Amino acid sequence: MSEISEKMRSAVVESREWYMAAYAPEGVPTSDHLKLRTVKISLALDSIPEQHVILETLFISLDPYLRSRMTGREDGLYSPQYNLNEVVSAFGVGRVLRSRDSNYGEGDIVISPFIPVAEYFVLPSQALIRKIDADAGIPLPEYISTLGIPGFAAWVGIQVVAEPIKPGSNVFISAAAGAVGMYAGQLAKLKGCRVVGSTGSDEKVRLIKEEFGYDDAFNYHTETDYDAALSKYFPNGIDVYLDNVGGEMLEAVLNHVNQHAKIPLCGMISGYNKVWTEREGVRNLLNLIGKDVKMQGFMVGSYLDRFGDFAKEMESHLKERKINSKLKIYNGIDKFLESLRSLFTSSNIGKVVIQVK
Amino acid sequence: MSEISEKMRSAVVESREWYMAAYAPEGVPTSDHLKLRTVKISLALDSIPEQHVILETLFISLDPYLRSRMTGREDGLYSPQYNLNEVVSAFGVGRVLRSRDSNYGEGDIVISPFIPVAEYFVLPSQALIRKIDADAGIPLPEYISTLGIPGFAAWVGIQVVAEPIKPGSNVFISAAAGAVGMYAGQLAKLKGCRVVGSTGSDEKVRLIKEEFGYDDAFNYHTETDYDAALSKYFPNGIDVYLDNVGGEMLEAVLNHVNQHAKIPLCGMISGYNKVWTEREGVRNLLNLIGKDVKMQGFMVGSYLDRFGDFAKEMESHLKERKINSKLKIYNGIDKFLESLRSLFTSSNIGKVVIQVK
Repeated sequence: MSEISEKMRSAVVESREWYMAAYAPEGVPTSDHLKLRTVKISLALDSIPEQHVILETLFISLDPYLRSRMTGREDGLYSPQYNLNEVVSAFGVGRVLRSRDSNYGEGDIVISPFIPVAEYFVLPSQALIRKIDADAGIPLPEYISTLGIPGFAAWVGIQVVAEPIKPGSNVFISAAAGAVGMYAGQLAKLKGCRVVGSTGSDEKVRLIKEEFGYDDAFNYHTETDYDAALSKYFPNGIDVYLDNVGGEMLEAVLNHVNQHAKIPLCGMISGYNKVWTEREGVRNLLNLIGKDVKMQGFMVGSYLDRFGDFAKEMESHLKERKINSKLKIYNGIDKFLESLRSLFTSSNIGKVVIQVK
Repeated sequence: MSEISEKMRSAVVESREWYMAAYAPEGVPTSDHLKLRTVKISLALDSIPEQHVILETLFISLDPYLRSRMTGREDGLYSPQYNLNEVVSAFGVGRVLRSRDSNYGEGDIVISPFIPVAEYFVLPSQALIRKIDADAGIPLPEYISTLGIPGFAAWVGIQVVAEPIKPGSNVFISAAAGAVGMYAGQLAKLKGCRVVGSTGSDEKVRLIKEEFGYDDAFNYHTETDYDAALSKYFPNGIDVYLDNVGGEMLEAVLNHVNQHAKIPLCGMISGYNKVWTEREGVRNLLNLIGKDVKMQGFMVGSYLDRFGDFAKEMESHLKERKINSKLKIYNGIDKFLESLRSLFTSSNIGKVVIQVK
């Protein structure tokens, strides 16, 4: 795998790629907004500028924040919008086919937050953030899952924003079977906390208890009185709430927080498909005062100075098999739209990934 | 003033006191809820138990949080409710008339968070938190204003919750002519910030600029498009928002926060007279994530370990005349209801106090 054939070295290959045809201000994006097209990419070394590489995509990370780059407006995450008619990009794993940067050789496996959702492409080498040792014994998709955005987001929430989390804390995690939730719950358990999660199906309730070690969990589609559910699962109140959904669940949590509770805000998926004025308002923020509660939003990109600490801890957990990962792998670049939409329908378990090659 | 007359030593005096006749779940409390009655208090030393004192009230501090003790339900501040038919209490200054605690002598001026809203009363001496040097040159009401709850709340918000505030920060303060606002704005100016406030009348706009040194201010009754107002007054965004009002203004602020902004939540007076489900919901909390914003509620009672640092700094500012105080003094215990109601009508400027004696 570390070398490409002589024939490929000057080939022109067909590459399928997804581009933003129209912004989707509301609702889940459809084929009206995201379209697949085929372009031709020359693999000849002299076809690319200095400090560029030609990559082929191996894995693409599907994360809910991508939705916020498709609205055509500021939506609260302030992510830069994809340009119309340009290929969309995401966190991913690629293989270097040709390189005009001496730091990267043919066959290198690399990570970038700017992997185009395409089969082949040319990228400035400064967009690559890490070269992977493919012989380290860690499956490649783990680099965009346990060791990627969701693992890092879980770690920042639990270990940094929660200051770090204290053993014995009563911890609630929403979207608990999602990519961030599965890691956050396991990290909190490793820190000696009692952890309860909410998720969207009975199957996922069972899974997060059995495979991710949650002490308890509930299905928010069947236990629809969130206030009653939280009374039941948190008789001693909530010390830490890692919020992935916002809206009504956040409001319910605020009626159950203990003094000095911490609420790391990781995502608010309940609102991503609505303009902000149509989102559910949280009416009981006064509780933050009465209980001395800290609520803090975070973008993982703002904590890159801690990435080394995170990677060291998580790689150690991985090697000691203390962290389980559940991946939902879609095969083929053509599955991008389907896999993106699946993030918003409670249908997935764990980390959603596209295996391109 | 330091001794009471021989005749008084065994007198029985009449004392007017306010008691909670009925809870007021919504709206501003009226004479249906708070009533004045006259009781008799013996000033004879042997009429009180050991470790008790007989006080006469000098000044009572009127603070919006008192409202939350009159609802008969949990409202988010979680303050203990006044008992029905019992006298209400507040932060205040009193004079010791008789004492069965060797730490307190007749004539001592004392501070307590549990001063009954009454002319005379018997109190356990452990409810007293501080003895004042009446010759220190600081007017007595300042001990419940600059050096009391509002000064301390402003200091905790600016110096602790804002971590502390950084010079050059763009600072917004709501209810800026209120007791907390006037101190918070001045403290932020002393720290080298640019400070803008919102308040409820043109007179108060002028006052906070001229007397409290705010760089700018606006009247939220006339500039009712808060979003437009904040665009105008904060062309470079908001770094710190000390929130005293909550609701619609908080929501508007969240559309103008800069990255890593801090939002100390001190109070949410816009909601105090409503049950929480009727309060205005904040729909754009997602902005906290996109801009890495910390929003943190605080009760001053949770920061008493910092009171010494606060008092030292504020007394120094007071002596150097770097902090101005504006007090609205109501005369006579019979003004309690009127002065309480004034907190919710935009009619007051600065700290509201009752001078009882």
